[in-house]
Amino acid sequence: MVPDPSPSSSADGLRIDRQRLMTHLADLASVAPIEGTEGCARLALTDEDRAGRDLVVTWMRDLDLDVSIDAIGNVVATMAGHTEGPPVMTGSHIDTVRAAGRYDGNLGVLAGLEVVETLRTAGLTPRRPLAVAFFTDEEGARFPPDMLGSLVYVGGMALEHAHNIEAIDGPKLGAELERIGYLGPAPLPGPTPHAFIELHIEQGPVLESEATTIGAVTGVQGISWTEVTVTGQSNHAGTTPMALRHDPAYVAAATAAHVRELVTELGGSQVGTVGRIELHPNLVNVIASTAVFTVDLRNTDEDVLALSERRLHEFLTTAAEREGVEVQTRSLARFEPVMFDAQMVDLIAECARSLGHSVRRMPSGAGHDAQMLARICPTAMVFTQSRGGISHNPAEHTDPTDLEAGANVLLRTLLSLAGGAS
Amino acid sequence: MVPDPSPSSSADGLRIDRQRLMTHLADLASVAPIEGTEGCARLALTDEDRAGRDLVVTWMRDLDLDVSIDAIGNVVATMAGHTEGPPVMTGSHIDTVRAAGRYDGNLGVLAGLEVVETLRTAGLTPRRPLAVAFFTDEEGARFPPDMLGSLVYVGGMALEHAHNIEAIDGPKLGAELERIGYLGPAPLPGPTPHAFIELHIEQGPVLESEATTIGAVTGVQGISWTEVTVTGQSNHAGTTPMALRHDPAYVAAATAAHVRELVTELGGSQVGTVGRIELHPNLVNVIASTAVFTVDLRNTDEDVLALSERRLHEFLTTAAEREGVEVQTRSLARFEPVMFDAQMVDLIAECARSLGHSVRRMPSGAGHDAQMLARICPTAMVFTQSRGGISHNPAEHTDPTDLEAGANVLLRTLLSLAGGAS
Repeated sequence: MVPDPSPSSSADGLRIDRQRLMTHLADLASVAPIEGTEGCARLALTDEDRAGRDLVVTWMRDLDLDVSIDAIGNVVATMAGHTEGPPVMTGSHIDTVRAAGRYDGNLGVLAGLEVVETLRTAGLTPRRPLAVAFFTDEEGARFPPDMLGSLVYVGGMALEHAHNIEAIDGPKLGAELERIGYLGPAPLPGPTPHAFIELHIEQGPVLESEATTIGAVTGVQGISWTEVTVTGQSNHAGTTPMALRHDPAYVAAATAAHVRELVTELGGSQVGTVGRIELHPNLVNVIASTAVFTVDLRNTDEDVLALSERRLHEFLTTAAEREGVEVQTRSLARFEPVMFDAQMVDLIAECARSLGHSVRRMPSGAGHDAQMLARICPTAMVFTQSRGGISHNPAEHTDPTDLEAGANVLLRTLLSLAGGAS
Repeated sequence: MVPDPSPSSSADGLRIDRQRLMTHLADLASVAPIEGTEGCARLALTDEDRAGRDLVVTWMRDLDLDVSIDAIGNVVATMAGHTEGPPVMTGSHIDTVRAAGRYDGNLGVLAGLEVVETLRTAGLTPRRPLAVAFFTDEEGARFPPDMLGSLVYVGGMALEHAHNIEAIDGPKLGAELERIGYLGPAPLPGPTPHAFIELHIEQGPVLESEATTIGAVTGVQGISWTEVTVTGQSNHAGTTPMALRHDPAYVAAATAAHVRELVTELGGSQVGTVGRIELHPNLVNVIASTAVFTVDLRNTDEDVLALSERRLHEFLTTAAEREGVEVQTRSLARFEPVMFDAQMVDLIAECARSLGHSVRRMPSGAGHDAQMLARICPTAMVFTQSRGGISHNPAEHTDPTDLEAGANVLLRTLLSLAGGAS
């Protein structure tokens, strides 16, 4: 299926227009901007999201693309090829978290349109059709879970169930789709693409710290989120001898420290984070009555991820028994690792190298629409640097030369997958 | 100075009236009760505190005591003795925390009045005068610091400074004293008593866990409160490799776990508590940017307390350097340990034993007015059990037989110090 990275084609010397891409990114960011920052805020299916969608759909129509909207609000814009058949698809999302940067998601969609515009400007038609999609509610910041639109696209969630999901501010997803005019007629699950490639900023520090331009993403880490509630005995911090304490804050702290030891020992891609701790009553001179904290464990290897979970639970059980406290755990999220198509990853790495860029194979620590598409077609992702690894934050930044490099890798990879253009 | 615990006196067989004491405790608790509990809420110098003060002053006057009110609102009610000279003083406080039990403070005042009423009813007069005091704002819950009234009584804080302290709800202490009618004329610092004894519930679990009735309190633990602010680098919990993290939550957790190890190793009376932890942004999938937490260290031995502080700071410095985070510490409170008068402690233990009660010498983990009086006269305290060690909580409870035992130990000790009654 996967062709040579540099097929003999009149499109070999083609490059995207950096300035045009930057202008589109800036124009979309100027819909619901966050004052005094480069960031923007377009939570899924709000008026702001509608304004962003309308702008991107206008650009799609300006490029003479065939725009289709499905019943979960996913928008797919298709450029006809010399041949019929399933399109080579690219894309991402344009919804954002509450205080977002301008590249997360948006880059993958607008770089896809930039590839189309580059072909149009050069008067070239790809052999296979080329589709650029944006998927609804990737962030999950207004409607849980995240990656919802792509999940429904691939048949992973029933449409009726999705329509009944309530926003954090109340309304149901189906009603909001209708209200903003994006409850479309295209059938779901959506048509299976020939292949899917998503360009995205890394949202992590690895590429920058290694001064590497392009990430060829091998898959997405499996995620395990556990909420732990420890119940002990609140007491006076001065009058309660150490031997008589049942201190949930101590068990929470010891567990958080153990998570670090555990993931360091497991090594490899294993990461672990305690990012949330809440004590009650949370006073300097009172032994807490309860501690609630979360443990985020991730690994590209399902067996090791499951081992890290077992080790966490063993530690909790032992620590709780020794301290005389009660521990309850609740799974907040659990996703198995996703492996991308090895040939697709190879193709991305070869396209990047043929353009003169340094490249690194790496897993994604964050979730992306591509992991849903990977269920139905050969899929992989292209990463560009994120300065300081900062994302989900208006301070998110990627240098224009890196954005350009990522978009050119996307162009070359899409052209390879499409069988060239002429 | 300290007489025999059982002086030949016509008061030898005297016992307090348990029912009368229980009724007074219930009546005072019924001023500003907390619905559905046994507790009450009379923050210092509020209307509720005024109502409680008025009730207790009425009882003092009913007992024909000479009531004096000083310029910080401390109330001292004196029963004349056969001789002139400084009185043997007892007492505590009647202000409470926001959601308090009915025994903390109140017991020491009302048991003192019960001793007086027992003497009155028996037609007995002590050789030395006997004084029952309640001190203003012991809890410090509305006006910092705690033990404020007794601190001013012993000359540890200038009156003008105290009057200018602002309540957590705004008004100044001097204005509130005037408003509720307790800005009295008695001079400050107050007159030096012959000796001071305070009866109090333990507010800890030691007596109950050892099935001991009476605590002869040897002193008050020194207290060191440190607030630690750790500043790191917020980042994505999935995309940030462990080696690139600067995680303040990890440093907070490791330190809290270390505090337990440290105090266990130091042993003796050393205790240590991390009761407050706050992470920002406090999300499951975000490495925190900051962690703020407190460390409460206490010991009866100043040298060991200072050692525990040094060891804490050494750990913080090392952990911060290893993790690449910044640590700032701020002292929230620091009191050296207080040693009570050894002969007074002996006297209490002997009085308890002569009444047939089990007794244990023990330090107080909490602060009390007695530690201020210890600066100017021989002082010690009597503890009774607290069920489950629970205090500063409407669920605070001590069995009536234990309250009776404590009040009888107070009676016998006061009579010994007063040189008997006849």
